[in-house]
Amino acid sequence: MIEAGIIGGAGYTAGELIRILLHHPEVNLNFVFSTSQPGKSLSSIHQDLIGESDIQFTNKINIQVDVVFLCLGHGNSKKFLSENQFSENTKIVDLSTDFRMKAEDHEFVYGLPELNKKEIKSADYIANPGCFATAITLAILPLAEMNLLNDEVHVNAVTGATGAGTSLSTTTHFTWRDNNFSAYKSFGHQHLHEIGQSLKQLQKNHSSEINFIPNRGNFSRGIHATAYTKFSGELEEAKKLYNEFYKDAVFTFLTEEELHLKQVVNTNKCILRLEKFGDKLLITSVIDNLLKGASGQAVQNMNLMFGLDEKSGLNLKASYF
Amino acid sequence: MIEAGIIGGAGYTAGELIRILLHHPEVNLNFVFSTSQPGKSLSSIHQDLIGESDIQFTNKINIQVDVVFLCLGHGNSKKFLSENQFSENTKIVDLSTDFRMKAEDHEFVYGLPELNKKEIKSADYIANPGCFATAITLAILPLAEMNLLNDEVHVNAVTGATGAGTSLSTTTHFTWRDNNFSAYKSFGHQHLHEIGQSLKQLQKNHSSEINFIPNRGNFSRGIHATAYTKFSGELEEAKKLYNEFYKDAVFTFLTEEELHLKQVVNTNKCILRLEKFGDKLLITSVIDNLLKGASGQAVQNMNLMFGLDEKSGLNLKASYF
Amino acid sequence: MIEAGIIGGAGYTAGELIRILLHHPEVNLNFVFSTSQPGKSLSSIHQDLIGESDIQFTNKINIQVDVVFLCLGHGNSKKFLSENQFSENTKIVDLSTDFRMKAEDHEFVYGLPELNKKEIKSADYIANPGCFATAITLAILPLAEMNLLNDEVHVNAVTGATGAGTSLSTTTHFTWRDNNFSAYKSFGHQHLHEIGQSLKQLQKNHSSEINFIPNRGNFSRGIHATAYTKFSGELEEAKKLYNEFYKDAVFTFLTEEELHLKQVVNTNKCILRLEKFGDKLLITSVIDNLLKGASGQAVQNMNLMFGLDEKSGLNLKASYF
Amino acid sequence: MIEAGIIGGAGYTAGELIRILLHHPEVNLNFVFSTSQPGKSLSSIHQDLIGESDIQFTNKINIQVDVVFLCLGHGNSKKFLSENQFSENTKIVDLSTDFRMKAEDHEFVYGLPELNKKEIKSADYIANPGCFATAITLAILPLAEMNLLNDEVHVNAVTGATGAGTSLSTTTHFTWRDNNFSAYKSFGHQHLHEIGQSLKQLQKNHSSEINFIPNRGNFSRGIHATAYTKFSGELEEAKKLYNEFYKDAVFTFLTEEELHLKQVVNTNKCILRLEKFGDKLLITSVIDNLLKGASGQAVQNMNLMFGLDEKSGLNLKASYF
Repeated sequence: MIEAGIIGGAGYTAGELIRILLHHPEVNLNFVFSTSQPGKSLSSIHQDLIGESDIQFTNKINIQVDVVFLCLGHGNSKKFLSENQFSENTKIVDLSTDFRMKAEDHEFVYGLPELNKKEIKSADYIANPGCFATAITLAILPLAEMNLLNDEVHVNAVTGATGAGTSLSTTTHFTWRDNNFSAYKSFGHQHLHEIGQSLKQLQKNHSSEINFIPNRGNFSRGIHATAYTKFSGELEEAKKLYNEFYKDAVFTFLTEEELHLKQVVNTNKCILRLEKFGDKLLITSVIDNLLKGASGQAVQNMNLMFGLDEKSGLNLKASYF
Repeated sequence: MIEAGIIGGAGYTAGELIRILLHHPEVNLNFVFSTSQPGKSLSSIHQDLIGESDIQFTNKINIQVDVVFLCLGHGNSKKFLSENQFSENTKIVDLSTDFRMKAEDHEFVYGLPELNKKEIKSADYIANPGCFATAITLAILPLAEMNLLNDEVHVNAVTGATGAGTSLSTTTHFTWRDNNFSAYKSFGHQHLHEIGQSLKQLQKNHSSEINFIPNRGNFSRGIHATAYTKFSGELEEAKKLYNEFYKDAVFTFLTEEELHLKQVVNTNKCILRLEKFGDKLLITSVIDNLLKGASGQAVQNMNLMFGLDEKSGLNLKASYF
Repeated sequence: MIEAGIIGGAGYTAGELIRILLHHPEVNLNFVFSTSQPGKSLSSIHQDLIGESDIQFTNKINIQVDVVFLCLGHGNSKKFLSENQFSENTKIVDLSTDFRMKAEDHEFVYGLPELNKKEIKSADYIANPGCFATAITLAILPLAEMNLLNDEVHVNAVTGATGAGTSLSTTTHFTWRDNNFSAYKSFGHQHLHEIGQSLKQLQKNHSSEINFIPNRGNFSRGIHATAYTKFSGELEEAKKLYNEFYKDAVFTFLTEEELHLKQVVNTNKCILRLEKFGDKLLITSVIDNLLKGASGQAVQNMNLMFGLDEKSGLNLKASYF
Repeated sequence: MIEAGIIGGAGYTAGELIRILLHHPEVNLNFVFSTSQPGKSLSSIHQDLIGESDIQFTNKINIQVDVVFLCLGHGNSKKFLSENQFSENTKIVDLSTDFRMKAEDHEFVYGLPELNKKEIKSADYIANPGCFATAITLAILPLAEMNLLNDEVHVNAVTGATGAGTSLSTTTHFTWRDNNFSAYKSFGHQHLHEIGQSLKQLQKNHSSEINFIPNRGNFSRGIHATAYTKFSGELEEAKKLYNEFYKDAVFTFLTEEELHLKQVVNTNKCILRLEKFGDKLLITSVIDNLLKGASGQAVQNMNLMFGLDEKSGLNLKASYF
């Protein structure tokens, strides 16, 4: 059994990790570190866990675990790792933005399996992708692979309220968000950096703009994204190209039917739909922001790092309704 | 024109009052007092008001207004009035719990028009009823009038998230409340006091229990309540009794059809439905918690105090969808 | 008093018209024609109307009314008018698509007051704009006025479930739509025709594409639209241009704050926000699809046709929560 | 591997069964019979299943399967079994109401494991309990075991829209149900029969009334029920009694914390909370209506019938948000 630890156990992504790891056939949840909740049972915070685990949050770290997941606020992972040292054999999956951009001073591999599966398998440190970045990158990456991203891409995406984290704010108050909709951070979302990095990894000369308008949806889980750009080929060529690119992906699928968000909610899937209108290729992409967009993908990366079945522990029942 | 002021202008009930008073044909909104927002436009907080008013929140009180509405937290109205004095002619409508229970040390009239219309017309000070209290009292008051409340009453009611006020809390976070449901304060809700007082006003010997389970619903506005108790008569007798009791009520109606919450959302109505099952009379009652359960009823009381048409400014379009 | 009739009384837009007209100070609701519900009370279908009206649906038409609103399915207005003739003095407001495109065989004026106020005032027949068309046209019309629409416009908009009408379908089933999101009719929505016609009315040479992705949101009322295009000027120039264009508009406003849908739900307003990013001007536009996008605008048109205050009967309280 | 078939594959409960059985470690989904969808892929109806199965709906039945689940409308199971015969060794789990009441003419065991685990283990035919019946029976069954149900029980419960099935109706239309609430079938819900039968099985003399008001909630999944009745003992006695009664239950738990619906949504759990107020014991009970209230419990019964781990295939990740 792989001994796993979680750092920062009270948030949404930690909760999802716990839910997955408790039933993962190859993993034992060794500890869940929380400075705010030590001594409390996991189910006192993640209240669905009643009957599933007797583990308590701890403020002690076991540095000998096989893998540790960092579920800290952005900026805090780097700080945490500078102050805490794990054993040589401990692999790390970081869910923050801290190590997503390649840099001289770290060896984290960007953990998007559809892009970097080989590198992930031999990596010790994984920077887990952002949720919007996952949905959008998977929507256009096959075009970059073929050097076809030479015009602007127009992206509009909507995320559920869990995307904003557990902290309370005006726009996550129920009375505000219920039956509401709004755009935010238009043309300036922080995930554009990692999207650009991934595209450039495949298409060296990529320099056209990604125009991205994120929106707050009045639902809890999921991201629905549409992206379109000029594409001179036929729709069938695009489908062939995408199917080829994703032939080894175990969670990313193309559909020929109408696509809606709840097809993927509470699963680790990304489903894509391709359509052609005039000279534009439209790609619709849906994921669960907390799973394929965070904790599910983190476990997928762990599976790859440890040579397990990539889907182990991730055959999740969609809630669907 | 009646000059009106509002004390405590940033909350939900103040927002609703402003929305109503701005279009009330007999009222001029003289000032909106807010210690937290002075100098800001009303629409900076109540953001739907764009294009409707140029008024700004003020930290100065005009003590000469004809009527002032207190939209302060429970406990703060008493404190505010001890520290601030209005003109002799200023009428006061208090939306807090502070003066709802009759006492030697105040002259506030309990502002439920269906119970106290005559007293309200000649009152200078009104204690505006609570939202649950309004929905539940209106459901059973006609029975008290006939001294028929001699057995336990079983009440279950659900309220929207606006019932919890603007402050942020776990149970008003969208991710918690969305598609969720929970009971709270079972058998101990604070509104039981004013309900009991109203019942005793009509049925002197009333002493049977009101078993009340409040619930948090995943919607923003409204209260849906069911109440049942033993009733030996026929259903038609009950209907006759209720119709007689509410014959002068301008916002409280009986329906013969199935009843649902959205029939009253964004209106000042209370709709009641009566059914008989075995020896039990079941009364279903729906109101908008912010209107008939707060600000709408406050304006209804103001209309009565000033001898206006009771419905003036309150012919509100239901949102319905 | 203006005597008004409604043809096709059981749907959403008819319900909203009834709600508005019952409280309109200058209108008497003369009849509501319905082939499916004759003899039933209005409140049996529009169940919030309890206590507001004793009118029943009728299958008889009064051809002498001053104004008639056609709330029929698309295609049925033309058919209805070919089979029924009103008096010479009866003005007609049609809410369907049937007469929105100018044509030799009809004299309907396109009823967007921000574009055609003068023509509407003297018109006898009004083709009331579509909901998406209203939100999107108002977002970009000032640019057309200045001949500035020379590049593609990228529009993404989301509509509530009332946009799909009363008929039951998979995508309006609660279990499907709740917490869901999906795109539909991408690049091919029928409202693109009337949008194009309005733009060309102001900018004769307009020929660049309007790329429009409509989406189904999990809320009941409202449209939130974002539109962006190249704009070489400064943001302040754009704001000045828009403010000038809408200086006589009584329901269309610019805001400097963040914008969200519920600012306009249950009102007849359109609120716009302008932002500039790089060489792009982003316009966000929100309306209530059933009011400014349908029945509210229909009454606004009626007010103009009869020389009433344009806002008469339309000072609606936002539900906001 | 156990070969399993499903009869009536297009509805909600069939969809949930498919989702569970596709990942059940001991089951092979042999066929899904549907008269309406033969030849179509499962994912064309249950659209989350993309990438999980290539099975198609069939109109041919394999009568040799080890177990068959009947997901037919109420009344249709009896008819189906009279027209179709399975092999001697085929076990049957019926999800309809048809065989829930004991009768001379059938041998179905009522499949509530907390009540009949021993009988289920040796049964060939299981009548799977109703959703409301499961939530309510589990709330009060321990009292019946001790012959303590001698006074009226007051039950109020709210169900999600999936409880109404896939058929389209006014009250499952999104525009009706969104942000709405309503009671229905008060004092007369059909599940009262099976609840009464279960109570009498433990408390022979049970004859006091179960006053039950069901409600339609504006969420998709889940049942939240409160039940209270007179209880002369201390709260701790009640807790002891419940803990003892449920000591062998693998999905039914008591909690000491506040309880809310989403703790169990998308799981097979039932969580109960006990409180004492005056002379009343209040029990709150939550389940997922489609899992513990239908398909999850059906698989739990299958596990018991085949001697598998009772939780096999049912360690489901809660959606929680």
